[in-house]
Amino acid sequence: MLAEIITIGDEILIGQVIDTNSAWMGQRLNEIGISVKQISSISDKKDAILTALTEACSHADIILITGGLGPTKDDITKHTLCEFFGAKMVLNEDALNNIKDIFERFNRPLIDVNIQQAEVPDNCIVIQNHNGTAPGMWFEFKDKIIVSMPGVPFEMIGMMEDYVLPELQKRFNIDSIFHKTIITAGIGESFLAKEIEDIEDSLPSHIKLAYLPKLGQVRLRLSAIGTNKEHVEKEVDQASELIINRIDKYVIATEDISIQEAILNYLKANNLTLTTAESCTGGYIAHLITSIPGSSNAYVGGAVTYSNELKQKMIGVKAETLALHGAVSEQTVIEMAQGALNTYHTDYAIACTGVAGPDGGTPDKPVGTVWIAVVSKNQTVAKKFQFGNKRLQNIERTAINSFYMLWRLLKNI
Amino acid sequence: MLAEIITIGDEILIGQVIDTNSAWMGQRLNEIGISVKQISSISDKKDAILTALTEACSHADIILITGGLGPTKDDITKHTLCEFFGAKMVLNEDALNNIKDIFERFNRPLIDVNIQQAEVPDNCIVIQNHNGTAPGMWFEFKDKIIVSMPGVPFEMIGMMEDYVLPELQKRFNIDSIFHKTIITAGIGESFLAKEIEDIEDSLPSHIKLAYLPKLGQVRLRLSAIGTNKEHVEKEVDQASELIINRIDKYVIATEDISIQEAILNYLKANNLTLTTAESCTGGYIAHLITSIPGSSNAYVGGAVTYSNELKQKMIGVKAETLALHGAVSEQTVIEMAQGALNTYHTDYAIACTGVAGPDGGTPDKPVGTVWIAVVSKNQTVAKKFQFGNKRLQNIERTAINSFYMLWRLLKNI
Repeated sequence: MLAEIITIGDEILIGQVIDTNSAWMGQRLNEIGISVKQISSISDKKDAILTALTEACSHADIILITGGLGPTKDDITKHTLCEFFGAKMVLNEDALNNIKDIFERFNRPLIDVNIQQAEVPDNCIVIQNHNGTAPGMWFEFKDKIIVSMPGVPFEMIGMMEDYVLPELQKRFNIDSIFHKTIITAGIGESFLAKEIEDIEDSLPSHIKLAYLPKLGQVRLRLSAIGTNKEHVEKEVDQASELIINRIDKYVIATEDISIQEAILNYLKANNLTLTTAESCTGGYIAHLITSIPGSSNAYVGGAVTYSNELKQKMIGVKAETLALHGAVSEQTVIEMAQGALNTYHTDYAIACTGVAGPDGGTPDKPVGTVWIAVVSKNQTVAKKFQFGNKRLQNIERTAINSFYMLWRLLKNI
Repeated sequence: MLAEIITIGDEILIGQVIDTNSAWMGQRLNEIGISVKQISSISDKKDAILTALTEACSHADIILITGGLGPTKDDITKHTLCEFFGAKMVLNEDALNNIKDIFERFNRPLIDVNIQQAEVPDNCIVIQNHNGTAPGMWFEFKDKIIVSMPGVPFEMIGMMEDYVLPELQKRFNIDSIFHKTIITAGIGESFLAKEIEDIEDSLPSHIKLAYLPKLGQVRLRLSAIGTNKEHVEKEVDQASELIINRIDKYVIATEDISIQEAILNYLKANNLTLTTAESCTGGYIAHLITSIPGSSNAYVGGAVTYSNELKQKMIGVKAETLALHGAVSEQTVIEMAQGALNTYHTDYAIACTGVAGPDGGTPDKPVGTVWIAVVSKNQTVAKKFQFGNKRLQNIERTAINSFYMLWRLLKNI
């Protein structure tokens, strides 16, 4: 069973908004055994919508559309769909009641454009929107299922979870798709490929191996499709075991989790705690850690010491260290890490200080110069990095490298 | 001049990776007057690539492809392009030298699959890759320009900036596209639309107004296309001035910046400083602030106080406050904000504490309960929010609402 996702909105095409809806939808469709054949982002113009719909009907069985259902003049999805199906617009009472409820709850008067949101083509099943005013629409047309939902992520998610996914599951008897991911670090993509070449070559044709490199790590993804779910899972598990045994020391995790999640799992399992002292990453390391549910079991919090004053005040970096070696130095980063560890009473600490850019570089310490330290009570490792001149990339690379350094310290590798 | 972006890779379709390349490319193409007609994400299968190429040739003049150029077996873009053009593969000496240089620099032996990366179809102009091993390829085919680049973001960005964008600019005499964005908060999309309905109706047909709602704010984007750049800019400026005058008090910024950037601009202009004390957002507020270049001029740093111990130790929340009212309470959030302000000597402070979820909720304080406080020396505003049960969404909403609260405090509205 193949699906196509169409996201409508100029804001995506001009890069003002990054389309995160499609990734979410792709994940969830995969989980119930529906493969996404294509994701198309198009303009909110009638001809673009009609062309995309026609092309999607030639690629896929299920077409999920998001966007263009708002109350304003640039929202034309509903009327274009109505024209595509040769249907006519009718007022849907349930949708209208939902809109009235929302406006009453916020104590706001209903205006005409809000009432018009309750109008839908007469050939659709209405999907109620429990998180907003625009109703979703489910169409069946020439053996295809076409669903139109709002582009606001949590409205779309609500409709997918409450109605679309369960309904698709009910309708189809679908082949099983099974993925297994192995996360590696410390080895390049081509070396990894050479290392496991014979295993890859011996895989049956319905098992696919993909390499997904990303900032110092390579994710290996095994995928298989088959009618017998258990059989497919077993085959993929066997293949992944062969690979894991071969490249053991590079494996961070055998499920699709981030390195920070692997670290937290290790800390929790061993009843250990962690703190952070961040300068150039400005809270990003803490954010990556605390994005993970249950992180408070191992992570106590930390300091964002942007100014020199806070480096001294919060975590006891010495004024003379800053004066003698500067804020971006081995001495400072070690004092930050050890200071955080001692002040906040944890087993491990990460610290970093650097020139994130675009300004603040000197000939001596150009933009992209970063010091990272990871420490425990008895161990201190500090390392200098020279990244590029892009601020956000420098922040991201500092964070990911600090996690690798901590991982190696935890694992003694 | 119309472009289509094709991103190749199953990892996008199954939602393992979010496609951020396309947004970046869309922005940069727009800046030089090229409109993106469609973004298509497709599988790394031959038939999918061939179908997408054929369809793209019917939509657009310029086709930019990313992904599938790595050294491993799942990377088939290059050979599929070769087949599409009826070309044959040849070894490119410059690309090979680049690969050799990189392997020498990292002191690694060259293996066969790495050398094969230097092979390209014989009808292309090679785009050198200064950030990796896979060369880019520029094809001219039946009045279309087709460019293939790696999917690794900074490799693609390097090629776009060094070669593709300048080359496209040189080739075409393109109409000017001009965008202007107005960021509003505190008014819903439909009310905003009604408020400026007469202005919108009076716009000439080549000026388009789009509403982009997002978590409590609405971005208004005016776009116009024309042959005379100055004339188009002037028209858009006039229209935006009419709108800004009408909805003055809801306007946060008249350029496409975030509310945190608007706050930093205000603080810097008035020589004021800011700190943060975060519990449930775990560093995300600090990260959003410090992502902005130059933020250190107003932001000194802050505390991530995940544990109760750190709430007391770092910013002086009283033990009895925590015992009596709990960590998620008006009293605690106010002590956090005032404590941070006094400890770190700033003019303003933001604090938040809440139950981000998915665990940790109680009947009294369910998941999604959040307290936010914003304070100055003489002012304290605290507010309770009841968000949903999704951790990342709760973190994001807390951050954005804390910025709105600070904005209103700064502006006395």
